[in-house]
Amino acid sequence: MKIETIDLFYVAMPVITTEGDGSQDALLVRVRAGQSEGWGECEAAPLASIAAYVGPMSHGSCRPVRDSVLGRDLQGHRDIERIALDVAYNSMDLLQAPHVLSGIEMALWDLLGKQRGQPVWQLIGYQRAFPKMPYASMLFGDSAQETLDKVRAARNRGFRAVKLGWGPFGRGAAKDDADQLHAAREGCGKDGIVCIDAGQIWGSDVEAATARIPVLEEIGAYWLEEPFQTGALASYKTLSERSTKVGLAGGEGAHNVDMARHLVDFGGVKFIQIDCGRIGGIAPAKQVADYAVERGVTYVNHTFTSHLALSASLQPFAGLEQHHICEYPITPKQLALDITANHLLPDGNGEIHVPDQPGLGMVVNTQALEKYLVEVEIKVQGATIYQTPRLDS
Amino acid sequence: MKIETIDLFYVAMPVITTEGDGSQDALLVRVRAGQSEGWGECEAAPLASIAAYVGPMSHGSCRPVRDSVLGRDLQGHRDIERIALDVAYNSMDLLQAPHVLSGIEMALWDLLGKQRGQPVWQLIGYQRAFPKMPYASMLFGDSAQETLDKVRAARNRGFRAVKLGWGPFGRGAAKDDADQLHAAREGCGKDGIVCIDAGQIWGSDVEAATARIPVLEEIGAYWLEEPFQTGALASYKTLSERSTKVGLAGGEGAHNVDMARHLVDFGGVKFIQIDCGRIGGIAPAKQVADYAVERGVTYVNHTFTSHLALSASLQPFAGLEQHHICEYPITPKQLALDITANHLLPDGNGEIHVPDQPGLGMVVNTQALEKYLVEVEIKVQGATIYQTPRLDS
Repeated sequence: MKIETIDLFYVAMPVITTEGDGSQDALLVRVRAGQSEGWGECEAAPLASIAAYVGPMSHGSCRPVRDSVLGRDLQGHRDIERIALDVAYNSMDLLQAPHVLSGIEMALWDLLGKQRGQPVWQLIGYQRAFPKMPYASMLFGDSAQETLDKVRAARNRGFRAVKLGWGPFGRGAAKDDADQLHAAREGCGKDGIVCIDAGQIWGSDVEAATARIPVLEEIGAYWLEEPFQTGALASYKTLSERSTKVGLAGGEGAHNVDMARHLVDFGGVKFIQIDCGRIGGIAPAKQVADYAVERGVTYVNHTFTSHLALSASLQPFAGLEQHHICEYPITPKQLALDITANHLLPDGNGEIHVPDQPGLGMVVNTQALEKYLVEVEIKVQGATIYQTPRLDS
Repeated sequence: MKIETIDLFYVAMPVITTEGDGSQDALLVRVRAGQSEGWGECEAAPLASIAAYVGPMSHGSCRPVRDSVLGRDLQGHRDIERIALDVAYNSMDLLQAPHVLSGIEMALWDLLGKQRGQPVWQLIGYQRAFPKMPYASMLFGDSAQETLDKVRAARNRGFRAVKLGWGPFGRGAAKDDADQLHAAREGCGKDGIVCIDAGQIWGSDVEAATARIPVLEEIGAYWLEEPFQTGALASYKTLSERSTKVGLAGGEGAHNVDMARHLVDFGGVKFIQIDCGRIGGIAPAKQVADYAVERGVTYVNHTFTSHLALSASLQPFAGLEQHHICEYPITPKQLALDITANHLLPDGNGEIHVPDQPGLGMVVNTQALEKYLVEVEIKVQGATIYQTPRLDS
């Protein structure tokens, strides 16, 4: 079958704030080929990704992503890999390309799975899918008390693990952070897992990060995530040697497999976190998962948006029993919940299950999305090269 | 003074082809503050960069680049650095951001230089600017004969160094490449410098690259550029250990300082090539130049577009006498020549000079650009968020 149509839908909450909450908008991708349809989701910056998909060619290695996907043959997983290779080469100088490819690639897997009646995790080589233990992923409260309340609420909902990030953390004195960290531990109880996400707040400043290690050890933090910008490998490495009890986590910024490998090889991270909506989709994420197994580090998904993105992000490590913990956005915006009609909810044991249904196993709720649709029109030399397609078409 | 207006102009040749010629279009940036004006140029993919500049915010760390620049104070170089840090943090999840920032950052330096009556290379810390030896940068001919003719023509124009890249090179058998390489050497004469650019054709395949080393050594190639994709550090490293006579070059894909450092530290390149239109502008490129000096590798500009971009790309290593060779596009499209009214032409000695005039020392020819202007209009929810500004305003 041939990839006949690719539709990009920009959806957003009515009001977007500066909080570090990535569930405020989304770029959804619908792909159709033969009688089948697949859906995917790109992480953040919908307009730039739309432009990277449709934008006029600059030269041979700076072509819009569309040129390497639309009209291509899709029979099996080799075709998806070939398309990804072509995008990497033909859109080499188009920086935004991997982000928009990510959603398209997910949709191709979803489509292929539905067409074959198989879940994506089977298509990418796993025999079975193991349940994952979700950590409730949330932002720090503005105060330690608010953080305590948020974490307690998550525990009361049955989560055995939490992750706190962003908000005031790392911006002030180490002492203020200490109060926040103790509140997180108190809220989570002695047996709970507490992960901390610094959101790149220290840039590449190893000393600022080092100042927080004692209290992270004191509260028994499970990991310290993104102390630095993604490329600050030397800083990661130095900190990893200083923080022997609290392992470092990172990788969400990786927009190709190489970047993720470098964090393992040169940055010394113990947890490699991949966002399928950024790294180019599911197949490159699976490559990172294989590499994590080989190098003895733990693969974790990065997901802060919808359950469509969540399902996609679970596929690459669905078959890895030892890689048990997974990110689970606990208080996403209503938009993110409304994207799908079905949801991946924790079972009685507090675990979530990668869908057994064909493809990604998620039903996109096109009707519910109408009200979130952001109408976009792009004209070049008077010709409309992009206009928001119809959800009900 | 305050940054009052930032205008982005998308200019292009009437017909864009798939050849690897980056001079077919450009995104020009005009910045105004107080009584001064500055110009810069972003490398490739104008529409995606425009979208990254104006596009609606996704969340706190995925804001359009505009939000971190427009209205900001501009008194000195610290302000430019602060703006760049803010873009890196506020647009962390907007992959295209560094490419559009690059042109803006150049324009800020140009403006500051003009306002102070100083060339940019002085503002960034150099006492004097040394002349550079331009290598005539061109694409391989479709046949060895065509390559021979092209290189001879460049020699006849006085160029002592040439670089051949892209075209058929690396796509077929090593034997075909050998013919091309011998033609390049023949055309350049025994004493000429011949650089070879593989344009990432081998992905990460070390053996394919290794197969070309003997003939590269035979013709005494000065460097082998971009055998692999920018992030394939392990492949670079392995090849650098096998190719001891012909040093590796790379770095044009670096969109931050870290990536360039990694090519030196983990990839073993001997020549680090930076495109100021991609890495975030002039200041980050200067950081790479400092690092190159520290690590004993040679800094080289990457420039394949206008003389505005060329001037910008020379500033970061203007004061480094030992880093003598520079890229010089010899047959750019007419657009690239028409962008500026003045040009950096080789002197009687075959060398080019970084301008002594204030700022980047280039005069943008707005009148000549009218005919290349690509009219763009972007509407979001019915409101126009970008429309091509007037060149004559």
